Amino acid sequence: MKFSEVLRKETDHIWEANFNHPFIKGIGDGTLPIKCFRYYVMQDAYYLSHFARIQSLGGTKASDFYTTSRMAAHAQGTYEAELELHRNFSERLNITEEEHANFKPSPTAYAYTSHLYRAAYQGHLGDVIAAILPCYWIYQEIGEKLQNYNPDEPIYQEWIAAYGGDWFKKLVDEQINRLDEIAEAVTEIDRERMKEHFTISCQYELAFWEMAYTLEEWPAQAEKLKS
Amino acid sequence: MKFSEVLRKETDHIWEANFNHPFIKGIGDGTLPIKCFRYYVMQDAYYLSHFARIQSLGGTKASDFYTTSRMAAHAQGTYEAELELHRNFSERLNITEEEHANFKPSPTAYAYTSHLYRAAYQGHLGDVIAAILPCYWIYQEIGEKLQNYNPDEPIYQEWIAAYGGDWFKKLVDEQINRLDEIAEAVTEIDRERMKEHFTISCQYELAFWEMAYTLEEWPAQAEKLKS
Amino acid sequence: MKFSEVLRKETDHIWEANFNHPFIKGIGDGTLPIKCFRYYVMQDAYYLSHFARIQSLGGTKASDFYTTSRMAAHAQGTYEAELELHRNFSERLNITEEEHANFKPSPTAYAYTSHLYRAAYQGHLGDVIAAILPCYWIYQEIGEKLQNYNPDEPIYQEWIAAYGGDWFKKLVDEQINRLDEIAEAVTEIDRERMKEHFTISCQYELAFWEMAYTLEEWPAQAEKLKS
Amino acid sequence: MKFSEVLRKETDHIWEANFNHPFIKGIGDGTLPIKCFRYYVMQDAYYLSHFARIQSLGGTKASDFYTTSRMAAHAQGTYEAELELHRNFSERLNITEEEHANFKPSPTAYAYTSHLYRAAYQGHLGDVIAAILPCYWIYQEIGEKLQNYNPDEPIYQEWIAAYGGDWFKKLVDEQINRLDEIAEAVTEIDRERMKEHFTISCQYELAFWEMAYTLEEWPAQAEKLKS
Repeated sequence: MKFSEVLRKETDHIWEANFNHPFIKGIGDGTLPIKCFRYYVMQDAYYLSHFARIQSLGGTKASDFYTTSRMAAHAQGTYEAELELHRNFSERLNITEEEHANFKPSPTAYAYTSHLYRAAYQGHLGDVIAAILPCYWIYQEIGEKLQNYNPDEPIYQEWIAAYGGDWFKKLVDEQINRLDEIAEAVTEIDRERMKEHFTISCQYELAFWEMAYTLEEWPAQAEKLKS
Repeated sequence: MKFSEVLRKETDHIWEANFNHPFIKGIGDGTLPIKCFRYYVMQDAYYLSHFARIQSLGGTKASDFYTTSRMAAHAQGTYEAELELHRNFSERLNITEEEHANFKPSPTAYAYTSHLYRAAYQGHLGDVIAAILPCYWIYQEIGEKLQNYNPDEPIYQEWIAAYGGDWFKKLVDEQINRLDEIAEAVTEIDRERMKEHFTISCQYELAFWEMAYTLEEWPAQAEKLKS
Repeated sequence: MKFSEVLRKETDHIWEANFNHPFIKGIGDGTLPIKCFRYYVMQDAYYLSHFARIQSLGGTKASDFYTTSRMAAHAQGTYEAELELHRNFSERLNITEEEHANFKPSPTAYAYTSHLYRAAYQGHLGDVIAAILPCYWIYQEIGEKLQNYNPDEPIYQEWIAAYGGDWFKKLVDEQINRLDEIAEAVTEIDRERMKEHFTISCQYELAFWEMAYTLEEWPAQAEKLKS
Repeated sequence: MKFSEVLRKETDHIWEANFNHPFIKGIGDGTLPIKCFRYYVMQDAYYLSHFARIQSLGGTKASDFYTTSRMAAHAQGTYEAELELHRNFSERLNITEEEHANFKPSPTAYAYTSHLYRAAYQGHLGDVIAAILPCYWIYQEIGEKLQNYNPDEPIYQEWIAAYGGDWFKKLVDEQINRLDEIAEAVTEIDRERMKEHFTISCQYELAFWEMAYTLEEWPAQAEKLKS
């Protein structure tokens, strides 16, 4: 079994929890409150801006020039995607300049991106790919699963279309293949660490939906507001 | 006002939330369930092992040799402290070798240490000190506040004594002074980023008590067990 | 005066030494032994593969998403340039697969790229740009200076054309502007460190021509062969 | 054969070139011009201040807490050694405050320390140890070889005594054992990269003697002075 298949299988219960999360169900059937999606869009823009930095760091840690150039292409692709998808959404969701200026990452968005930096700075390219792969791969499976859903909200329709498409699948497959190639050349200890990074990212994907669904706040901020 | 005083003041509501957390109250009056403290000890040992790595990285980023040597001394001190305090507790709390072998960091312990790595790898020494300071400083103020408490549980007494002592205050003051010196020599943008790192660490200190008090689990792990 | 103008002026004697180096003179008048250029091409391919990794690391250290995407675009551009320019030269210079497989970086190529990694990992984006700028800028001025030379060797003609063109000037100007913007927002200490990184890269540019002109070897390798 | 033995054997010609360098011979028989040793002492102080930062970074990359603490102890030890050995020499060699203030690293001292940063930031602990080991090990063998020499210059006598002693051998053995343990647990590709880092450091040790013996300058600085 390929390393990626092992990872997919061993984390299957986390993937199922992702698929069944009310945020995802709510996009599919159109019942997700738009304020949750709005919150998600802002945190996701933050997430992607750091995702591109991690992809770049992957390029720095690559051992061949071609991979460096591919990781750079991915980083640029993340930028283009963010520009198209999110700025489009920002406008339609009336996210104001003021909101952008006052933006703070949520605990989960901050923790997830910190995890990526940690894996990337401390590890090698295999750790980078293992850590960033769930973001590609879970989105792609969600995109596929929701393909036949037709929510009333046009924004949800577009979101589904974006991640269910062929161009996205191609990106995902490239990273899966890269991971499998690296995994074959390293030690069992390396693979265990890569699996750990992959698993934690799967957990953070799940936590990200929950974050948006509950409009997550930092503990002491909530504390402050309550009093 | 010194930079450290500004930080202390602006995050005061988070410090208050730390002081008032049932975990801390429970150490003071002895009502904290021992299983929460046991959970805390294991996660704290993990935390400290990464804290020492961050202190070392601070030494790498220092611009003068003396500071490199001081950060190395702190890293060694963290190791000694962990050895004395926690291995002592491990034994008395009957934490088995098997438990150590199966140990996994909790979401909060993992996120907090990831935050430290992120600040340290991406930033300069000022970011490192800003990020690690709350762990020193909040513990020291808690140690002071609990000094006159006399919980029945001897382990809680010892814990209070450890962080309320003069030797610990000296360590804390050294890092506060270091932060203030650095803060004077950098730009407002640098100081804002350092403040952000400090504030997030204060939040994580609070989250750490909550983690232990609720015996925190990863989302999908809990999910799995429920079904 | 802009920061870049200060840097250019203060390092002028190093630029002059670059312009007057027999390697450059020899490209202009066609007298450079082809074995020196061949040596240069192989070391430069190595250099560029690391240059792209440093550009990527610059993207990781950028504080805004747009700059991350631009640094990624530059990294990709370095890859494309290397592909076009050097693989073309490799073929025409009969650089064999075996030579590529047995390739070792020269002391200067290794030291120059180590300098870039050091500046990039230890510093912030300003350090990255300061360190990589001489490679852009000196080549561009050399390209301009040699524009009216017409060496017999067609490879030397092409080399001159590549760096004397408008597309290259645009790339250079972008990085100069980036450096000036960053320099305005940082402290004098930061600027001094950036100037140091810039100056050292100017020295390494000069050393690079000397390396190729003398077919540089590692000290103990030469020692070994002599005996 | 242990990995360290393989490394020692394969780089033997570089070690021999170290042993036979006129700088080393000159320390042994007392003929080394004191201005060369003076130059060496200043560059070595610079080197050691970065060596301690790399040892710290090794502690950051260690996978167990004990190794983190040992690397921190080594970093502190480097600081103490520098304080004792070099400040002592500084005084006796009349190295003035002004000279310290105007100090610039030589090309070789800069390149060697850049190599260490590169290996440490890009690699794992094995790369760090492989890169720093020659500095320990070559000095120790030189110290042993010169043990029975009795140069007239008391400073040279002390230098020999410092590196020929048992306390130094113990430090060296610790790092050799660490390298061998790591080497057994990693892949052939990892070992090749570690060997490369080790070999380059052996070359830089040799270049360091040559640097001091020739009072090395940066190329364009020399150029400037000549004109």
